[in-house]
Amino acid sequence: MMRKVNVAIVGATGAVGTQMIKLLENSSLPLGTVKFLASKRSAGKQLSFKGDTQTIEELVPDSFEGIDLALFSAGGGISATFAPEAVKRGAIVVDNTSHFRMDPEVPLVVPEVNPEALREHKGIIANPNCSTIQMMVALEPIRQAFGLNRVLVSTYQAVSGAGNQAMEELKQQTRDYLDEKPVAEWQADILPCGGDKKHYPLAFNALPQIDVFADGGYTYEEWKMINETKKIMEDDTIKVSATCVRIPVMSGHSESVYIETERAATVAEIQALMEKAAGVVLEDDPSQQIYPQALNSVGKNETFVGRIRKDPDEEKGVHMWVVSDNLLKGAAWNSLQIAETMYEMDLLN
Amino acid sequence: MMRKVNVAIVGATGAVGTQMIKLLENSSLPLGTVKFLASKRSAGKQLSFKGDTQTIEELVPDSFEGIDLALFSAGGGISATFAPEAVKRGAIVVDNTSHFRMDPEVPLVVPEVNPEALREHKGIIANPNCSTIQMMVALEPIRQAFGLNRVLVSTYQAVSGAGNQAMEELKQQTRDYLDEKPVAEWQADILPCGGDKKHYPLAFNALPQIDVFADGGYTYEEWKMINETKKIMEDDTIKVSATCVRIPVMSGHSESVYIETERAATVAEIQALMEKAAGVVLEDDPSQQIYPQALNSVGKNETFVGRIRKDPDEEKGVHMWVVSDNLLKGAAWNSLQIAETMYEMDLLN
Repeated sequence: MMRKVNVAIVGATGAVGTQMIKLLENSSLPLGTVKFLASKRSAGKQLSFKGDTQTIEELVPDSFEGIDLALFSAGGGISATFAPEAVKRGAIVVDNTSHFRMDPEVPLVVPEVNPEALREHKGIIANPNCSTIQMMVALEPIRQAFGLNRVLVSTYQAVSGAGNQAMEELKQQTRDYLDEKPVAEWQADILPCGGDKKHYPLAFNALPQIDVFADGGYTYEEWKMINETKKIMEDDTIKVSATCVRIPVMSGHSESVYIETERAATVAEIQALMEKAAGVVLEDDPSQQIYPQALNSVGKNETFVGRIRKDPDEEKGVHMWVVSDNLLKGAAWNSLQIAETMYEMDLLN
Repeated sequence: MMRKVNVAIVGATGAVGTQMIKLLENSSLPLGTVKFLASKRSAGKQLSFKGDTQTIEELVPDSFEGIDLALFSAGGGISATFAPEAVKRGAIVVDNTSHFRMDPEVPLVVPEVNPEALREHKGIIANPNCSTIQMMVALEPIRQAFGLNRVLVSTYQAVSGAGNQAMEELKQQTRDYLDEKPVAEWQADILPCGGDKKHYPLAFNALPQIDVFADGGYTYEEWKMINETKKIMEDDTIKVSATCVRIPVMSGHSESVYIETERAATVAEIQALMEKAAGVVLEDDPSQQIYPQALNSVGKNETFVGRIRKDPDEEKGVHMWVVSDNLLKGAAWNSLQIAETMYEMDLLN
């Protein structure tokens, strides 16, 4: 008989946690007990899981007694404190925050790209940044076939990546716009970044800041894309740069990606790669106006790729448009997929 | 005594025409008569100009009798037919459509960049594409100081560039979203491109199509940015590529621009150039979260530049964020500025 897996969801009430719960209901994992953990504030609330009503428990170190798999998505601080507690009690942690991602002891995994890295785990596996994951799914097959020298990406990121309150803020600003309230009166307390000093409206705007600013005039979100790409692809020589921008979209990150391959590839060759790539759906027919769209990606686990075209000047340069649901492949689905992959690899028992 | 300039505005009721009229009220041009021309459908409507009520006239060839300056913004077909009629009657035409832009006989002018090209005019001057103009204003000072080998741009374009009806469509879809109407029931008859076969919702979405598709998987909007850049900068060797994307913003185009200069420049050097560049406002202080924003650009004639930073790998690579009101510097203001510049250069009499 298959051994059951006892699961804890940390951050069960958040934007990502909510999606994790939905996905877990249909997971291939043989579930044992499932615990829903959150802050004291949310403890006692109820939610529905596989038709049953379940009560959310307060997250404490002993919450992880008897747990095999803990899926964390409650902020970096929570992961820093509680992930080691979970590991100490025998659980494997899949952490969706940025806290452990660049730790050399922690595998950073996109299952379509580097599942073998899971074998090196010491209890914690990091889920990459949402905007990195979808780009990796699209680029890894190209890297394998043609080599990859360079990546330049400009993102069009949805607000759900900033959480439920940020989504509400955008909604309210949108209402204010339709009610013809002057922009100066719109409330902006969260975006572009909850922890930063200033806040700006996102409705009918584009904010070139995600996370706080760091070295060299880049934001942390941009450094995440740069550093995580190199770690996941296990190649420090790939040149990567990013401009990360929040736009008024609820869910679904879009990315304008430019790459330079080592060996020149035709559009048809790249399309053929995308057609058979795991986790990718090719949507690319300009004659029929077929291209990926954020709105169409919502609720889907795949990464959608289109607008594949050669650079007009650079023989090895290719442009493409990459879209995925940031709450799913960008967060909840990739986390659960890591767990399912570990189970299949016999790493989860 | 200064000679007065008799002006006709063609497309007076459109999104751009409306802005042109506002700007003309404060223009430095010594105005004589001012005529407002539009299609038969709009003829007879009234509008206010400098405190007087004026009646919109139907556009016919003889509308241009006695006119010195005709500002066209009523679609390429109207320009094709009526711009030569205006020229025949002695008017100088500043055309805001794409119709004449790549005609080698027609100067394509951004006054901050290539005013001397105006001297070559044969009656028609073309106003470049909105997304091209603001990029030229930001890049020309850099090209002059450090040379320019390469430009890669991803745009975040506002819906007002597609006209008043497109703005109404986005507004209605936004209302539908707030009313929780399913996406499938939102009305989409115009965007991404009025003349194309399929239409998609823009609210809470990002559409990687502006204008129809053309060669090599690029849209015309993308080719406009590529070809117009080379023509305005009078340099066919600059490598240019573009990804043009419409996002749910009413006015204000944002652009993620990557350039490679001929000689390496520091961030401070480029910031210093931007500070003294004509038509540019530098908004660039990450420590204070200062960067250009579409919402802040509305109603302003300048181009706003920020997020200037070096590429992490490419010594001559620089990234920046360029924002401007697409109806003003991108259209109405650049057109009127061309006329004012011609007047100052003694080309308008």
